[in-house]
Amino acid sequence: MNNPMQSHPINLIQILQHAANYHGNVEVVTRRVEDDKISRSNYASIYKRTCKLANALKKLGVQPSKPIGTIAWNTDKHIETWYAIVGQGAICHTINPRLYAEQIKYIINHAKDHIIFIDLTFLDTFTQISEELETVEHVIVMCDQEHMPELSIKQKVHCYETLIGQYNSEFSWTSVEEKTISSLCYTSGTTGNPKGVGYTHRSNMLHAMVATQKDALNIHGEQSILMIVPMFHANSWGLAYAAPMVGAKLVLPGAKLDGVSIYELLSTEQVTYSAAVPTVWNMLLPHLKNNNFTLPDLDEVFVGGSAVPRFMVRTFDIDYDVTIIHAWGMTETSPMGTVCRLLPEMKSLPYEEQLDIRCTQGRPPFGVELKITGEDGEELARDGVAFGNLHIRGPWVVDYYYGQDTPATDQNGWFDTGDIASIDPNGYMKITDRAKDVIKSGGEWISSVDLENAAMAHEAVFLSAVIGVPHPKWEERPLLIVKLVEGQAAIQEEIIEFLSTRVVKWWLPDEVIFVDEIPLTATGKINKLALRNQYIQ
Amino acid sequence: MNNPMQSHPINLIQILQHAANYHGNVEVVTRRVEDDKISRSNYASIYKRTCKLANALKKLGVQPSKPIGTIAWNTDKHIETWYAIVGQGAICHTINPRLYAEQIKYIINHAKDHIIFIDLTFLDTFTQISEELETVEHVIVMCDQEHMPELSIKQKVHCYETLIGQYNSEFSWTSVEEKTISSLCYTSGTTGNPKGVGYTHRSNMLHAMVATQKDALNIHGEQSILMIVPMFHANSWGLAYAAPMVGAKLVLPGAKLDGVSIYELLSTEQVTYSAAVPTVWNMLLPHLKNNNFTLPDLDEVFVGGSAVPRFMVRTFDIDYDVTIIHAWGMTETSPMGTVCRLLPEMKSLPYEEQLDIRCTQGRPPFGVELKITGEDGEELARDGVAFGNLHIRGPWVVDYYYGQDTPATDQNGWFDTGDIASIDPNGYMKITDRAKDVIKSGGEWISSVDLENAAMAHEAVFLSAVIGVPHPKWEERPLLIVKLVEGQAAIQEEIIEFLSTRVVKWWLPDEVIFVDEIPLTATGKINKLALRNQYIQ
Ligand SMILES: Nc1ncnc2c1ncn2[C@@H]1O[C@H](COP(=O)(O)OP(=O)(O)OP(=O)(O)O)[C@@H](O)[C@H]1O
Ligand SMILES: Nc1ncnc2c1ncn2[C@@H]1O[C@H](COP(=O)(O)OP(=O)(O)OP(=O)(O)O)[C@@H](O)[C@H]1O
Ligand SMILES: [Mg+2]
Ligand SMILES: [Mg+2]
Repeated sequence: MNNPMQSHPINLIQILQHAANYHGNVEVVTRRVEDDKISRSNYASIYKRTCKLANALKKLGVQPSKPIGTIAWNTDKHIETWYAIVGQGAICHTINPRLYAEQIKYIINHAKDHIIFIDLTFLDTFTQISEELETVEHVIVMCDQEHMPELSIKQKVHCYETLIGQYNSEFSWTSVEEKTISSLCYTSGTTGNPKGVGYTHRSNMLHAMVATQKDALNIHGEQSILMIVPMFHANSWGLAYAAPMVGAKLVLPGAKLDGVSIYELLSTEQVTYSAAVPTVWNMLLPHLKNNNFTLPDLDEVFVGGSAVPRFMVRTFDIDYDVTIIHAWGMTETSPMGTVCRLLPEMKSLPYEEQLDIRCTQGRPPFGVELKITGEDGEELARDGVAFGNLHIRGPWVVDYYYGQDTPATDQNGWFDTGDIASIDPNGYMKITDRAKDVIKSGGEWISSVDLENAAMAHEAVFLSAVIGVPHPKWEERPLLIVKLVEGQAAIQEEIIEFLSTRVVKWWLPDEVIFVDEIPLTATGKINKLALRNQYIQ
Repeated sequence: MNNPMQSHPINLIQILQHAANYHGNVEVVTRRVEDDKISRSNYASIYKRTCKLANALKKLGVQPSKPIGTIAWNTDKHIETWYAIVGQGAICHTINPRLYAEQIKYIINHAKDHIIFIDLTFLDTFTQISEELETVEHVIVMCDQEHMPELSIKQKVHCYETLIGQYNSEFSWTSVEEKTISSLCYTSGTTGNPKGVGYTHRSNMLHAMVATQKDALNIHGEQSILMIVPMFHANSWGLAYAAPMVGAKLVLPGAKLDGVSIYELLSTEQVTYSAAVPTVWNMLLPHLKNNNFTLPDLDEVFVGGSAVPRFMVRTFDIDYDVTIIHAWGMTETSPMGTVCRLLPEMKSLPYEEQLDIRCTQGRPPFGVELKITGEDGEELARDGVAFGNLHIRGPWVVDYYYGQDTPATDQNGWFDTGDIASIDPNGYMKITDRAKDVIKSGGEWISSVDLENAAMAHEAVFLSAVIGVPHPKWEERPLLIVKLVEGQAAIQEEIIEFLSTRVVKWWLPDEVIFVDEIPLTATGKINKLALRNQYIQ
């Protein structure tokens, strides 16, 4: 029987075309990387420039399924680059510039990028490794002629604006099979070499459609979205697709993520919605407080990547009337895995009970399946108590790492996240720890995350990290590492005393170490590998 | 290269499974067909009963791609039936019971339904045609044993509750290729024999995902949805998928669509959202007014199928603080084609200008493409003035009518809707007429719809219809047919006088005919074919 419904493939460029046709005047505002000035564009203009760039790339030899790298901040040019690449069936490989030069080199060579788009900020790092890049032929510097630096590297160097200036603003996109890879993102590689996660037109599209749901990311045409989460972190959590899909205004912070710069955009661009890891909000809050600033337009802030601290949810609620939505995901899950929103009946619970729920990682949207398993691989009860290895399944979850022959999933299609979690009867998932960070003491597990959170509640503690150190009798015991709030002092006994009212006795760390800095990973999380290297002999 | 993302097919049963797992306690409330009483179920229970029914159907010989018919109101049992059928890869063929017995017979034989689910209300009609049904082996009456009638028909008769009572509530669904047909709906056949439109798992799923968007149907987990639009009208506009996808409460009105019954559900079930054709709201409004009722919970009402009258939008706004959202679609488009929501900047326009926009049919959501063409097939300008044949393209638009060999689309994939429309620079589409109803006078077109609307603005006019009658000099001239408000009298001259201030002179009808009833089609629209048969000799 013939196809009763039209079934041409869903291709990501359709999103930008729709935005250009139906939301052409909607603004895309960027803090330029070149000079930190604000520049204003809109979807109609972004689309035209995307077409110009597509023509330019065609001339440079773009090929279906061949990766092109970007080392870039969130800007209008990065959006154009992204769509110009995926629109032609090529792969947009967003590279995390916070990785070490060595890792960046590894990733570019592994992916076989033949063109690299790069922001001025990252040229120094790039120059260091450029000699050793095996496949890169062209480097496109994302600025205009005026800001173009002298570069002596072996690759052919282009100026973005000069390049696209030579081409016309129409392009005829050819449709690609929807399971074609559109984008590529490497995990930060805190364990071993980074692994590539490939997204497809289909997976990104389904992810974007569900992301727009009010019960998921809540993206709609009346939002003004400050997209802080970088495009090189798991697709900017899908926002660079979901926002143009419904014509939401996009505000792109470029290279400036400090409190002053972020606040400026929040207030001048009437931002209603934003998304970023907790670290960013930690930088903003003191700035707001010191200046008595308010956030009259901001309504919802989406926070994930690490657990959101309880005080943060409360502070945003009470001091700023802004709702933090906690979410969990991974590079491997596109990243939307769970979103924490209260069910209607929970809104009448006492506030602290609501916070208990809002500090869990939440529930999966339609499309995502979750389960937790014990050491024997059997599924555990969803009772909010049992915790075990968290597995995930769904159309935007990894199946094979990029270029690998063995699946990343088991025979039933489940992907083991490496996280340890519980699930309560309402389906709220709570991350207890990462499998590799959980502390095994006397045959039982201690959650490093719970201990860290308990320590963070002490007013002198700015940041805390807990790692397991080997112990002759107990196998492992927790070590607490603390960075103090500036000007504050605290002694070990006082902190342990404080913890003793918050966790069971056998969880109490035997020692507290005070440090000036706690090392972070390229995705802004506590780098426990570095801590373990330093503190475990 | 291996699939980087999991790519198992999207199957519709996943929606109900998700609802059962994550929104199990969310209510599904039904006005029972058997006795008009209210019965309360929820997604967990609906899912269990769906599994029982799936087991029963398996025993009765359900086969992938074989259609099963339903002649039924919107009820919990109809939802169960729907998912039990599509979940097994079979085709759920929803039959419009308002068609003539002859047409129903034609449709069942044409689709080759082998099982029919039927509500008590429709048994008489069914009995009339049962002898002549060529493929039906089983008839399942949707009630319990207590309400089960004696039936003497050649098919094997089952009682729904007795049948499912014999099976257990677990079922292992096998995944089907996502372009498999899941459902079938025949157009009402106002021109020629009804044509079957087949929906697929993929088309329904994408439609549901986009329907949930705030900018589209706005379906989310805090809604209590009174689903008035029948499941046999283009998939109940996708609501039976979109609501469980996000865990919205569903209120199902069974056989009672009169003002009293609808108001009762609106108020006792704290309904926040509803969807139905204008006729339904026309029945409700006098009831509200006569009783001084208010609608404190209701927020949005989705109206399509025919143009929404301007007074209705205004009345709901001003008297009830309820927002009517006007939409356009067809059986052939699943049906979401356009949705009329104001752009943010339009909300500061004077109210009457807002109404001008809100009475257009609106803009397409992501996924849908529209264009209008002139008589030569060339695309017309989107200037809000030019009007021509409306074409549509997208993943939930028909490609081939059910079982046909020639496509319903042109070589570029466009489907000609049979509607005449204009599109303004912001993308708002306005239906001027149906191609078959537009009146050709002196080489120019007169919109029968605009004339009808102008007449409807007269306080004595309850309903009006305009058809073209042949004219020796002008080719066609408009004839106005009017049903008066009860107790009102109006004379032809007065109405024409009234119209003359509202439409150009050469549009004025030469004659007005007053009638007691204007015939409606099975989908509740003015039956112009019947009028033409009656008034054109
Ligand atoms: N809301 C959250 N609460 C707690 N942990 C979270 C949350 N969101 C994400 N995570 C953690 O982040 C992980 C996913 O992060 P990401 O994909 O950015 O790379 P990474 O896991 O940090 O790096 P790598 O995989 O290279 O070690 C999850 O597996 C989880 O451990
Ligand atoms: N909002 C609206 N305003 C005006 N007309 C509308 C609107 N929504 C739908 N329609 C009309 O309804 C048609 C689609 O209706 P439907 O698919 O229910 O069957 P039908 O066209 O009435 O019947 P048949 O195709 O058998 O003649 C559209 O083509 C359009 O003419
Ligand atoms: Mg990881
Ligand atoms: Mg039609």
